[in-house]
Parts: sequence; C-alpha cells; structure tokens
Amino acid sequence: MGNSLGKLFVVTSFGESHGSCIGVVVDGCPAGLPLTAAEIQKEVDRRRPVAAAGGTARKEQDKVEVLAGVYSGKTSGAPLCLLIWNRDADSGAYEQVRSVPRPGHADYTAWLKYGGYNDFRGGGRSSGRITAGFVMAGAVAGKLLKICGVEVLAHTVQIGDIKATPQTPAQIKKNADKNPLKCGDPLAAARMIKLIEKIRKGGDSIGGIIEVMALNVPAGLGEPVFDTLEGDLAKAFFAIPAVKGVEFGSGFASATMKGSLHNDIFMLKNGKVVTLTNNAGGIAGGISNGMPIVARIAVKPTPSISVKQRSVDLKAGKNVDLSIKGRHDSCIVPRAVPVVEAMMKVTLCDFALRAGLIKEVLK
Amino acid sequence: MGNSLGKLFVVTSFGESHGSCIGVVVDGCPAGLPLTAAEIQKEVDRRRPVAAAGGTARKEQDKVEVLAGVYSGKTSGAPLCLLIWNRDADSGAYEQVRSVPRPGHADYTAWLKYGGYNDFRGGGRSSGRITAGFVMAGAVAGKLLKICGVEVLAHTVQIGDIKATPQTPAQIKKNADKNPLKCGDPLAAARMIKLIEKIRKGGDSIGGIIEVMALNVPAGLGEPVFDTLEGDLAKAFFAIPAVKGVEFGSGFASATMKGSLHNDIFMLKNGKVVTLTNNAGGIAGGISNGMPIVARIAVKPTPSISVKQRSVDLKAGKNVDLSIKGRHDSCIVPRAVPVVEAMMKVTLCDFALRAGLIKEVLK
Amino acid sequence: MGNSLGKLFVVTSFGESHGSCIGVVVDGCPAGLPLTAAEIQKEVDRRRPVAAAGGTARKEQDKVEVLAGVYSGKTSGAPLCLLIWNRDADSGAYEQVRSVPRPGHADYTAWLKYGGYNDFRGGGRSSGRITAGFVMAGAVAGKLLKICGVEVLAHTVQIGDIKATPQTPAQIKKNADKNPLKCGDPLAAARMIKLIEKIRKGGDSIGGIIEVMALNVPAGLGEPVFDTLEGDLAKAFFAIPAVKGVEFGSGFASATMKGSLHNDIFMLKNGKVVTLTNNAGGIAGGISNGMPIVARIAVKPTPSISVKQRSVDLKAGKNVDLSIKGRHDSCIVPRAVPVVEAMMKVTLCDFALRAGLIKEVLK
Amino acid sequence: MGNSLGKLFVVTSFGESHGSCIGVVVDGCPAGLPLTAAEIQKEVDRRRPVAAAGGTARKEQDKVEVLAGVYSGKTSGAPLCLLIWNRDADSGAYEQVRSVPRPGHADYTAWLKYGGYNDFRGGGRSSGRITAGFVMAGAVAGKLLKICGVEVLAHTVQIGDIKATPQTPAQIKKNADKNPLKCGDPLAAARMIKLIEKIRKGGDSIGGIIEVMALNVPAGLGEPVFDTLEGDLAKAFFAIPAVKGVEFGSGFASATMKGSLHNDIFMLKNGKVVTLTNNAGGIAGGISNGMPIVARIAVKPTPSISVKQRSVDLKAGKNVDLSIKGRHDSCIVPRAVPVVEAMMKVTLCDFALRAGLIKEVLK
Repeated sequence: MGNSLGKLFVVTSFGESHGSCIGVVVDGCPAGLPLTAAEIQKEVDRRRPVAAAGGTARKEQDKVEVLAGVYSGKTSGAPLCLLIWNRDADSGAYEQVRSVPRPGHADYTAWLKYGGYNDFRGGGRSSGRITAGFVMAGAVAGKLLKICGVEVLAHTVQIGDIKATPQTPAQIKKNADKNPLKCGDPLAAARMIKLIEKIRKGGDSIGGIIEVMALNVPAGLGEPVFDTLEGDLAKAFFAIPAVKGVEFGSGFASATMKGSLHNDIFMLKNGKVVTLTNNAGGIAGGISNGMPIVARIAVKPTPSISVKQRSVDLKAGKNVDLSIKGRHDSCIVPRAVPVVEAMMKVTLCDFALRAGLIKEVLK
Repeated sequence: MGNSLGKLFVVTSFGESHGSCIGVVVDGCPAGLPLTAAEIQKEVDRRRPVAAAGGTARKEQDKVEVLAGVYSGKTSGAPLCLLIWNRDADSGAYEQVRSVPRPGHADYTAWLKYGGYNDFRGGGRSSGRITAGFVMAGAVAGKLLKICGVEVLAHTVQIGDIKATPQTPAQIKKNADKNPLKCGDPLAAARMIKLIEKIRKGGDSIGGIIEVMALNVPAGLGEPVFDTLEGDLAKAFFAIPAVKGVEFGSGFASATMKGSLHNDIFMLKNGKVVTLTNNAGGIAGGISNGMPIVARIAVKPTPSISVKQRSVDLKAGKNVDLSIKGRHDSCIVPRAVPVVEAMMKVTLCDFALRAGLIKEVLK
Repeated sequence: MGNSLGKLFVVTSFGESHGSCIGVVVDGCPAGLPLTAAEIQKEVDRRRPVAAAGGTARKEQDKVEVLAGVYSGKTSGAPLCLLIWNRDADSGAYEQVRSVPRPGHADYTAWLKYGGYNDFRGGGRSSGRITAGFVMAGAVAGKLLKICGVEVLAHTVQIGDIKATPQTPAQIKKNADKNPLKCGDPLAAARMIKLIEKIRKGGDSIGGIIEVMALNVPAGLGEPVFDTLEGDLAKAFFAIPAVKGVEFGSGFASATMKGSLHNDIFMLKNGKVVTLTNNAGGIAGGISNGMPIVARIAVKPTPSISVKQRSVDLKAGKNVDLSIKGRHDSCIVPRAVPVVEAMMKVTLCDFALRAGLIKEVLK
Repeated sequence: MGNSLGKLFVVTSFGESHGSCIGVVVDGCPAGLPLTAAEIQKEVDRRRPVAAAGGTARKEQDKVEVLAGVYSGKTSGAPLCLLIWNRDADSGAYEQVRSVPRPGHADYTAWLKYGGYNDFRGGGRSSGRITAGFVMAGAVAGKLLKICGVEVLAHTVQIGDIKATPQTPAQIKKNADKNPLKCGDPLAAARMIKLIEKIRKGGDSIGGIIEVMALNVPAGLGEPVFDTLEGDLAKAFFAIPAVKGVEFGSGFASATMKGSLHNDIFMLKNGKVVTLTNNAGGIAGGISNGMPIVARIAVKPTPSISVKQRSVDLKAGKNVDLSIKGRHDSCIVPRAVPVVEAMMKVTLCDFALRAGLIKEVLK
C-alpha cells in the first residue's frame, strides 16, 4: 500500500535494492510523446555516485529498459513500465541488519511494520536506490512539462555549514553540472568538496540543503483546499529517503518577517501581472501564481557511517555495538538533486494534466 | 477538485468564508464512537481570535451542528456532516478585492484559476475560516486516537525573533493554554505578546513557528514509499493557509549535522526499543518508530495589514495603491495551533485505520 | 468509507433517511456554470412517489437548498453542498427493525457491519431516500453535459412480465413523462399500472427493468483497462438500492448471438463513422464510440411488503414472524428512473472532465 | 489513466498484446504470505486456449516471473511485480487494423482516444491477453482469501442457447475442470462443444454466460453507498473484454418477481443467521450477508471472425470490406472463466483488507 503517487499522472513504484529490479509504472502519460530509453537513461545517470562528492566507488551500471507504453518511438497512451535490472549486488554485508537495526535507517520500522518479512538487503524498499524509479518517472514528466515551456532546476545550496551564495537561474544552469556537488556557486562547491572529504576520512557523513525551482510554470496549478501545490510537492519530496524538511519561498524565515516585508507586491510588467519579490515561492493559496516555484529541501546526513554505534539486538533482546562495513556515500545530497527535480516534475505534471494543459499541446 | 483528504478517514471540506456555512463531511469514522456537538465545539472554540494575541475583535459565535452520522449519541458508521452557519458577515469591505488583489493573499490566483467566478468575499475558500472545518474533523479524529492512547499537542515556539525555550510535554500541556499565544514557555509568551502589540500598532503583522507532537503513537504507521508519514502530514499541514514550511525532528538543522550526531541510537528501555535522541522526529523510512512524532510548521505573517501597499487593478490594467480596511489578526500563529493539531490528528487517524488499529479498540 | 464517487467530479453522499437531512457534496464542478436551487428541485421532484404507480401517499416536501459552491448565481469552483432537510419522519414504525431484520432489506447486513450502531430508522443509509442526493448531483452533472450537447434519458421498459415495445428516443421523450410509470410505450404503461394496482392490493410488490441512454456522447470517453465506461457506469448504477443487474447494448442476449450478428458494422454517414447496429451499447473496449450509450438496469421488487414474512429475532435468537406496517411503494421502478439518469450523468460528467471536454466549453 | 484497481489491494496493469510483456503490480498484499511463481503459473495456465473449445492452436508458453515483492519465498510487504514475457508474436496480420477497424473490436475507439498512437498490434491494450495480468493478481488474492476460508468458483452456464442445468458447488468443483468448457454440467458441456465446433466451421463465433460464486465469505464486506460489493465487483468484471452484462442473485429475473417471492427469508441454522433462498446473491444493501455471493456475467461472441465483414477505411475515408485472417477463439467463454474468478478474488480481497480481516490471519 502507498506505492502509487498522483491522480492523473500516476506513478507506481516497485522493486527492492537487492531484488531483481527497480521499476516504475507511469499511468496517464498522454499518447504521442516521443520517448526513448536513452533520454531516460540520461536522467538516471545524473543520479550516479561521484567519488569527489564522497560517493561510493560502487559501480552502478543501471541500464534503463522501456517494457511497455511506447510504440514506434512514441508513447501509446498505455501505461509505461520503466525498469532497471539489479546486478551483482552483494547482500552479505547486510546479514547483521536482520537483527541489529542500523541507527538512522528504516531497518527497525520496516522490520516492525512488515513483521520481519521485509527484504532488508541493501535497505530493501527504504534504500535510496528506489529513487532511480522516481527519476525515470521524472524524465517522462519533464518531457511533458518541457512542451509547456516549464523548466525544473535543482541545485545544492548548503552542505554542513557551508552555504552557496544565491545565483540566478542562468548561473545555476551554467555551474551546477560542472561540479560534483551540483552546486550553482563554484566557490562554495570547492569548499563543500573539502568538507565532505574531511567528513569521509572521519568515517562520518554530513547533511545539506537542496533548492529546486520551476520556471515558466503557468498560473493556476494546484487544487486547494487539500491538494495544494505546496502540499502535493511536499508529499512528493518526503518520499525521498533522508528528507526531513520542506519549505517554499521564504519558508521558515517567514516566521521572523513582518507582513509588510513578506507580502509580494503585484505589479504589471509588459502587460503581465508579476510580483516584485517572491517570498511566496510562486504559490499563493495553494495555486501557482506564474512566478518561479521555489522550494528548499533539508537532507539529513547519510545514516550509514563506519564509526561504531550502539544499537539493539532485536532477537537477543540486548544492547549491542554495531559497526557498518562497506563503502557508503558520506554525503547523499548531490545524488538527491536529480531526484528532487524528478519529484517536482512528476507533481507539476499531474497538476498540469488536471488543469488540461498538456493534452492540447501534444495535439 | 482537491477538497477531500485521506484514504480511509476521508475529510471533505465545503463552505466559504462569507457564504452560508463552513462544513466538513467525515467518512470512515468507525461506528460506536460517543460523539456530541459540544465536544467538537470545544475544539472549535480554541480557534477563536484572542485580543491579547493581536486577534481581531470580530465576534465569532461559531456553533457546531452535527447534521449526519450520529445516532443515539454515537457514530453510526455513516458519514458525519459537521457544520457551522456563517452569520452577519459584512462583505462590503471586500468589494475592492474583486479587481485589486491583496498582496500575500490568494485573491489573484483564485481569480485566475476560477475565471473570476470565485466567491472572493472574506477570501472565500482561501480564508483561514475554512480551517474551522478542519478542526471539526480533527475533533473526531482526536477522539479515535485517544482510544488508542495517542495524544496530540501543538504549541507556539516562535513569533518573529522571539523563541520559546524547549519544554517537556508536561510543561507544554500545563502552560500552553494559559496564555493567549498557546506558547509552552510563559516567559517567552509574555515577550511575544508585547511584540505583537507593537506590530499591531504599526498596522503590520508578524509570522511564527508552531511545534506539534504526537505522543504514544504506535510504531508502524505510514505507508512508504509514497504515503510516508512525513509526506502525508506535510500535505495536511500545507492545507492550512499561511504555512510555508514543514520539518520533522531536527529538520533543516539536519543539514549541518554529522551522521554520528544525527543518528538516533537504539536502546532497550524496560524491554522496549527506544532511541536515545529523537532527531528523526519519531519517523524513520516514512514509518513511525514509537518515539514522539515531532514537527515544526512555519507560519508566514498575516497578509492583511493596514499599511498602504501597491497592487494591480486587474480590470483597469494598471498599478494602484491598496489599503486594506477592517480589523485583522496581526498574528495568526496562535489561532493556527489547534488547526495544526487537527491536521496531525486527521492524518494519524487515517494511518491508524489503515493499520487496522482503531476498529478493534472500539469493539 | 465508500461514500464518495468519481475522480474529477467527486460526489460525496451524507445523511440518513430519518436523520436531519439528506445531502451531497459535489467537488470538481467547473466555475461559471449558472445554477439555481430551482433547477435541482425540478429533478428531485421527478423522484416523488406517484400514487397511480403504487407509490406511497407519504407526502415528501423535499426542498433543495444550495449551501455552498454557488456565488452570484454561478458555480464558483468551490465544492457544492446540496441539501434537503428531513421533516416529520415518523420513526416509530421502525422500532422492531432493531432486532428483527426485514427480509430483502439491508437491516441485517447494516446491523452486522456497524456493530448495531447504525441508524436503522427508515432504513438509514440503505434507504432509497439517500438517492435524492444522487439526483441533486445528477442535476449538476446534467447541466454540464448539456453544454457538451449530451442528453440522458431513462424510461421504464418492463414491470413484472409486461414489456414495453421499443420506441425511438423522440417517442420516449414525448411519452415517458406523461405516464406515472415513466414508460415510453403508453399502451404498456397502462397495463403496468393495472398490474401494480393488483399487486398493491395483494400487499405485495413487483420488480422491473429501466433502460437508460445517453445521446450525442462524444467518442473517446472511458479509461480502460479498469476505469472502463461500462465498469464505472455499472458501479454507479449498483449504488441505487434494489438494482441487481446491469447490461449494455445487447447485454445478456449477447450470449446467444453469433459474432457475425453481434459485431456492429462500421460505415460512413455524412463523413462520420457510425455503426449500423448498436449491440455494443455505444461502448467498445471500455470507450464510447459515438453511438448512443444504452444500458438496462434490473430492479428487484420493493422488499417492504405487508404480507406476513418469517425472520429472526437477533436479540432473542429465535425465528419469528414479521409484519411490516405503514405504506410503501409497491413498485419502486418509476421512482428509480430519475436516479438511474442521475448516475449516468454523474459518471459521464466525470469522464468528460477527464477527457478535458467540459472546461473549454464553459470558457 | 485508469489502469489501477482497488483501494487497499491495488492492482496496476501494464503491457501490450504484442509488446515485450504483460505485467501487473500488486500493492497492498500483506507481508508473510508464502508465494511462488509456480502457484501463479497454475492459474495462468487455466487461461490457455483449448482446441476442443474452439480455442486457437496458437501456442502460448506464458511463463510467470516474480520480479519484486517476494523475499525468501514469502511476500515482503513490498509491491509485487508479476510478469509474462511475450514471445514470437506475429504482428504482420494486424497491419490492416491500423486504418480499417475490425467490427466488434476496440480498434476504432482506441485509435480515436489515443490519437492514432496506440499500439494496435494484436489489439494492444484491448486484447484479451491483458487479462493474463488480472489472473496473476487474482492468484495472489486467492491465496489471501483462502486463509480466511473463502473459495471462489466460476463455471460456464450457457453457450449460445445451450444452458447448463444448475449444479451444487461440489458438483461444479468436480465437473468444471474435467471438460474444456469449464462447465459444471457434463451433458451440457458435450452439447456446447458440438455447437462451438459447428460455429467454428462456419467461420463464426458465439457468446455465453459465466456464473461465479464465492463461498464462506464473511458477512459485512462492502462499503455503501458507493463502494457497494455489487458495484465494485461489476466494475472489476467489466474490465474483462467482451463482458456486456453483470447480474447478482436473481438478477434480471428479479424484474418479474413479486417481493413475497424475491425476499430471502431469514432463519436460524445451527445458531447462525442464514437465508432460505439466495435471490440477493449474498449481498444486501451492498454488503455481504454471509450467504454465497453469486454473479452471472454475459460474454459476447468473439469479434474476430473469418467471414467477410464491412468496415470503414479511416485514412481513405470510404466503406470497405474486411476479412480477418489468422486463427482465433470461436468462443472465448471458457478462457474467461479463470479471469472472472480472478476479478472476484481481487475485489473480495480489497474489501476483506478494508474490513481488517486478512492481516490478523497472517500473523
């Protein structure tokens, strides 16, 4: 239960970290969209670990296959099934997880919820690897949004205490893919790399913040009072493991602001209603207002660390020490950047379909 | 579209700020729960404006009526219809909203989305008044949760720059209802009151942060990968107007933390698995872990301020000045506290039903 | 649970037969539709019992109120709340139902499902009276469909063994509202009236069949493989109490037909693709094909009869005799005709919205 | 859109007749159910064409693979992905379908709905082959129901004009799998075979009726007023291509019955409430009453026939003659029997989960 997202663009996730595959069924993609495995592959490849960013050396050769929904190079109106086969996963290292849950991981809650029957290998369904499916779905959504002129762009804005200085969308586009941190500020990126290297050497991990924005989003997306644009975006972001906070526009900083400062003043610009500032993050009353949609997502430090930790042996019923072997990302933030983009795309696409925007464009 | 929330405990909202009523249909409440209008009234009354907290003097005599779903004092298994009649609303002051959208409000986006047919009086469906319906639904959910031993508790932790010092749940329970701010720290509350008074005199408004916790939540609630506990809670919180950020546990502070510090160590306490810290906010892998669920919600300053603002006349197609008359809350935070509680209750109740917890208890 | 129907045009039912009201929330109606209580009233009035058709003499003065969703005479994009207050219901006669379930009624299953807490008075949620809410929702859907040129038309085609001879849509429109049976064949109607009178005198009841058709339905409605047009229509029809069968086009007669006879031959008529016959009932592969959608609905005899029946006393745990007092419809079929129309309208409207047809028309 | 079914036991279908695979994702199966591909295979094999029943000689070696959701031989709580690879499909014969739709098929409506982009080969998504996925999902649901003691049993009761004489469940179980028609009456089966052979020789096809029953279904399943047991079962049955009618209990025959005859009399039998007759088909007020659930499903004749038919060339815009080559089932009814069973299982399983019945049993 709970493995489908969306109302008109329905993404259903399946697969386990060390099972036979990771996959996704996407139902609701209009017919007639040109789509190749290669395009999706390109997005999935952006999720690959990068050594310089503290990524694991584990080689992930994730090859995307389109099993259904595409005919003669175009979507057929049938549900898409997109899949990556898992290969060569060594599940040996996870044997102890069975009875001794790793702090910060979902081992304990999954064990409890599924009565011990869950596939714990590699974290099973709780693994970050599941997000490869999200990215595949996001690639489809992204193509649909592009037709409407919408562009989605995420980048790392903070690692530990190091914050990127604000950049324009143009700068972010230019800079973010040039450094392993996917950070729009090259100077900050350099410092972040050093910090991560230091953290990694200490056998520890570090968190960060990702900013995501959607440009050229038509006003009118969102279905309040419950299916607000913020609400459905937040729900989508929280599906990414390690996300612990989501804010829009001025977000938590709004708490300290006066209304006279926070209110975004309306003005006419080339005959179009715009706002002078964007403290709303492009959303008012749960509905897009035509300004860029801006959200920030807090990512906790990777729970897998090599320093010794305390835990509990669930079978023996006693406190024990735990040492996690193997190599792990010491900072998951840059790898989460394309996943954040994917969830933004998937959600916007659903709302665009609800608003009847996409079908017309494809015709 | 978008006015229903939940899967097994389905809340459907209806009514407008200055229409004939505000109401809610709650489908999925198990039969046999004792329920009176008075109990629901008590929760709704907590939403009333308080003068000392910058609340409007407007007298809201919201009387709850139970139109359906209760028979002989107990829920009958039929959908509940809970309703408050609107009385004596003066919509005259809102006439200008028709063509000149108020900055920070949903006037513009609602006008756009509904083609100008939306009921703009008093903010229509975008008004905070709609949350009275949320609170009615929350009152029902709260009773069901109470049967399972779950307690939900929200309080103000920040107004502007003034932060409450952390308190124990016992202290919060004791203190929060004693001051108009619903703040668990009496000293901070006193300072908040002064700040709000100052803001009010300046014709301005101020934001804040609410913390909400759920105690004694059984481990195992949440349905990842998409219907995570964080995700569905966040979606529910973002349905509250003025909410711009949601975080769980250490939230955005996680960005600066190392894994060795952030990971909550498991330990046995009286034979039960607990964690030493609660940076996870009671949720791991989207599933409750048995620790208190803790979230913080950022509330922006009330957009209605009396200082002059710039806006656009949509009909005349020109920039104009706007001055909002009437009295408005200069700080909406304390009134949002019971609403935040309600959304937490409604969401937990849905997950408890999905997990099959509540029905058994009622038998 | 289970009291909402539809995906984009969501109808949520509430109220009980002898509670304070019968109501419906309709979410998803586009903004800008002119709508008055009087129009809805007109449809609800068609559901009234007619003495000549064996209807009860009970006077139902059901006055429709629009509580939400309409502003300045037009739908505002907010959810509609439509309501009828119950008046003067005498629940005394139902006291024995509490422990002795009436054969053919839902007394026993409702008692079991809701643990004895269900409001059994007047049949509670299982009463035919609940369908007044369906008719209110159908009135809204009907107006939206009319904009698209779609017309929905139901009529009685069989009562007991008396079958109406087939009529053209024009004849049905002309005849059906002229006789209390809502039968398109005046001669058959006269015989049906006599049969019902005879049945009524015997303290018994009789069943029948309703045919419903939708004209000018655009091709392309329906979302297979699961949300087929037949499937969602059938689900909607089975929500009407007493319905025990649903068939489309040649329906059960298809069983005896050869493919060469059943297959509807395609041909061009005025440049448009039509079929020579309509054994498919206007639906192929779960999708409308542009021909009239035709369904037939089997209605069982009213279970409330005055002849003595056997039952069980659930409390005493013994077999007993039961005699149902009061006056009841001896044939519910004609009263179900507008309800069948309503369910057809509500379902088609949902599919028309999914296909993006209605919004454009309203602009 | 429309390719998912169920609320707590969610079946998502994907794949095309001549694409790379046919598959299904099943979300909501509780953890801990022993499950092997072989068990599912057994059900899928029952769908195979049988020559004696007019089935095509086409050899379908459909091998079931479990791609996700099973760990160490038991369901893990993760979504199941069940898949059959398509092999050796010759799509050449379908080339003409592109512009000349086959009467009785979904070629025309699918072409219209999906703007000509649909994968028409082998009927694409509208092919009966898609139901192999339904059967895989049904195999899982069937295992869960078996734990609760529920048994589902379908059999052919009519082919053309030949009707089986009623049999006891025990006789049906004994007889139905012994003849290629899956008919519980061996004598009727023999006559049906002869009829089909005659039809086949004439290049034509014939329809029929399937009866399905569920035994030992606990009372209380179904969620009225909209999610009735009849409604959701009917929706599920209509997802099977060629189904044109669904009735429960006395169904369409109810139209001719008096209430005194139709009402099922309650009586105590071994301390349990039962009904003397079962005209209700085990369902009252949309809720199961503990008696066998009985439905009948009308199946139209296979539209693929070799006799010449008229159609329209959509591209050339003119009437043409059409002759369908290749071998096709001249009676699809027996192959639909396990599919009908599957849809009954899937739907009952969803309601059993909603009622909280299954989880407890697995523990």
